[in-house]
Amino acid sequence: MTERCDLLITNVNAATMDPSIAGGYGAVEDAAVAVTGGKIVWLGPRRELPDCAPDEVIDGEGQWLTPGLIDCHTHLVYGGHRAGEFARRLGGESYEEVARAGGGIISTVRATRDASAEELYRLSEPRLRALMSEGVTTVEIKSGYGLDLDTELKQLRTARRLAQHNPVEIVTTCLAAHALPPEYDGRADEYIDLICEQILPVVAREQLADAVDMFCETIGFTVEQCQRVIDAARKLDLPVKVHAEQLARTGATAMAAKASALSVDHIEYISDADVLAMAESGTVAVLLPGAFYTLRETQAPPVKKLREAGVCMALSTDLNPGSCPIGSLRLMMNMGCNLFGLTPAEALAGVTRAAARALGLCCSRGVLRPGQRADMVLWPMDTPDQLAYEIGALKPAQIFLGGKDVTAG
Amino acid sequence: MTERCDLLITNVNAATMDPSIAGGYGAVEDAAVAVTGGKIVWLGPRRELPDCAPDEVIDGEGQWLTPGLIDCHTHLVYGGHRAGEFARRLGGESYEEVARAGGGIISTVRATRDASAEELYRLSEPRLRALMSEGVTTVEIKSGYGLDLDTELKQLRTARRLAQHNPVEIVTTCLAAHALPPEYDGRADEYIDLICEQILPVVAREQLADAVDMFCETIGFTVEQCQRVIDAARKLDLPVKVHAEQLARTGATAMAAKASALSVDHIEYISDADVLAMAESGTVAVLLPGAFYTLRETQAPPVKKLREAGVCMALSTDLNPGSCPIGSLRLMMNMGCNLFGLTPAEALAGVTRAAARALGLCCSRGVLRPGQRADMVLWPMDTPDQLAYEIGALKPAQIFLGGKDVTAG
Ligand SMILES: [Zn+2]
Ligand SMILES: [Zn+2]
Repeated sequence: MTERCDLLITNVNAATMDPSIAGGYGAVEDAAVAVTGGKIVWLGPRRELPDCAPDEVIDGEGQWLTPGLIDCHTHLVYGGHRAGEFARRLGGESYEEVARAGGGIISTVRATRDASAEELYRLSEPRLRALMSEGVTTVEIKSGYGLDLDTELKQLRTARRLAQHNPVEIVTTCLAAHALPPEYDGRADEYIDLICEQILPVVAREQLADAVDMFCETIGFTVEQCQRVIDAARKLDLPVKVHAEQLARTGATAMAAKASALSVDHIEYISDADVLAMAESGTVAVLLPGAFYTLRETQAPPVKKLREAGVCMALSTDLNPGSCPIGSLRLMMNMGCNLFGLTPAEALAGVTRAAARALGLCCSRGVLRPGQRADMVLWPMDTPDQLAYEIGALKPAQIFLGGKDVTAG
Repeated sequence: MTERCDLLITNVNAATMDPSIAGGYGAVEDAAVAVTGGKIVWLGPRRELPDCAPDEVIDGEGQWLTPGLIDCHTHLVYGGHRAGEFARRLGGESYEEVARAGGGIISTVRATRDASAEELYRLSEPRLRALMSEGVTTVEIKSGYGLDLDTELKQLRTARRLAQHNPVEIVTTCLAAHALPPEYDGRADEYIDLICEQILPVVAREQLADAVDMFCETIGFTVEQCQRVIDAARKLDLPVKVHAEQLARTGATAMAAKASALSVDHIEYISDADVLAMAESGTVAVLLPGAFYTLRETQAPPVKKLREAGVCMALSTDLNPGSCPIGSLRLMMNMGCNLFGLTPAEALAGVTRAAARALGLCCSRGVLRPGQRADMVLWPMDTPDQLAYEIGALKPAQIFLGGKDVTAG
């Protein structure tokens, strides 16, 4: 019996990223992919394709099909920018002088609080669309430039609204524990109270966040304070992730692994024991080479040890106005290779399979396989190695979101 | 009497890059710009605009207008790519193993020789268009992957043909002295004979190159060999430029300055005396942070000394399949700041005024000023600092080539 399907892509090479298929890319050459109801229903060598009656057929012309890219760590909803601060620093002013001149994260908090919801949306949408134009089909967006209930909600609602008006999937994370708001100066524990007792409960009730994040650093919140945020998130059934050990070892990764966090992000300074703890808990390492590059850091995350321990490594932009105003996930793949020593196949896994897992979404996306969402990108390239190797000329030929062609955005 | 003009752009802030106007950007805020016959005929504060009758008026809506960007050093016409080599290196193979497996520059020479003129054009055009989409209105393209008469001519003709079919200005450079072709192994001086006696004379006769370049390095050609190429170029009235001192000090910059070369490019290892020689000869320093980044170099060019000596510093992609497969001049502005310590204003000067001078074209472009070509880009930004600061969302609102709107390409 001939089965119908919505879409059949044929004459295509599939970088499935399915770890059960040999080779870093899980490649199926000369493949066919059938899609129905927004999901992949069949994928395999073209010659094995069962009899089927597709509503639409696309000739892939020998190009490569990958999962839609996933940017699993961004702060792209914010007011203002910090180009002036960037210029002052390069002009020779110290961090202290820049801070005294009103720079740093608090200037973004001020601009985000001051922006109307409409303005925040208008500023954020082009940042999202730049990612989408590279074949990104799922984007995580964090709050964390509000640091008060109203502005955190405004950021998260803006993120949800972006998803309503753009052909892209958006996952939101409440990062109220990003920095200490100026009005809580010297009273960090009281701000943690506010987060646990007021901000998170409202965010959860209004279903505005899919996860909870925190900035656990010597210049952020302590492990004890973050543990309280984790406990509050758990009571609300929200998964957690942690900005951890970017600047020094704090014990944040050990805490996160113990709490079965979805991911720890940055982790330049983790110890060997932390690596093993992550491997055991299945916590994803989210590597952020753009921040490493922008801050001119010298200690890279321990990629070799993570690889050997079997820790799942994701790659993301960290798109934000301070440490990474770079909205290009493709560039992060290149930097992941050049700066952190990932292979091109690890870089692609980092923005597909591993990124999906960092968002708790590995059942539905990140791999081309029957049952997964048909979020897919067709690339005019000879080999998937080109995705991390080159920037500029290589752009998606076609982008599919849930099987629908959204190339034009 | 009211004078007519083709185009008037009003309600715009102009980053003129004119050094006679104070401030790094030569900014004229709330300006108007009048264009006739493809050239700027008036630029100044809007309130001082003389009575004029424009055929077309554009409201700049308070955005910023800059000169069209100029990428003054690319190798974008080549066959094949080296993504496989990139992957092998990251997979742990040594440079020697990669070279034995057929990698390195000679693999690109082979692919370029094997490509038909049609195929070479088809491969190169998307690289050019990626630059154009960023507001680049003038691109220099070098030969140097032919290393024989026919293929060098094929590359240069492809570059000329790209200019005929795309709204962009292209400047060509003969870089036959890029590497020793395998058939001349052990006979470098004989290959220099071929360049001086056959390749350059034909290239000059057919007006296929606007300048002559050479790769003067310990792994390239010696200063003596390069001096012979310079002498041959001079006899043909072609200006020269030199790939110099990227890997070690060779004396190439001193030679180039003495020959009044248009530019020396890379120059990570130049001495203090070299800096002074460049300042005296007016030779432009072309900085290539993308190659520095890709090769994981640690010695940056002496930007402070170049600045203090008043050497004109240009920035370029070096777009090529080996050491910089990155076709983004905006990213080079960001890297010029983050990796080399340029200020954002120096970065913009580096891809406008200084890049024009590196091509011997400072009379006609690189600055917004009456008499110059109306190659201009309108940017939706608050400050020109944003051009080097951020990547992704900020894209040209409008691009003008000789006063004509070429935004759509
Ligand atoms: Zn972050
Ligand atoms: Zn070069």
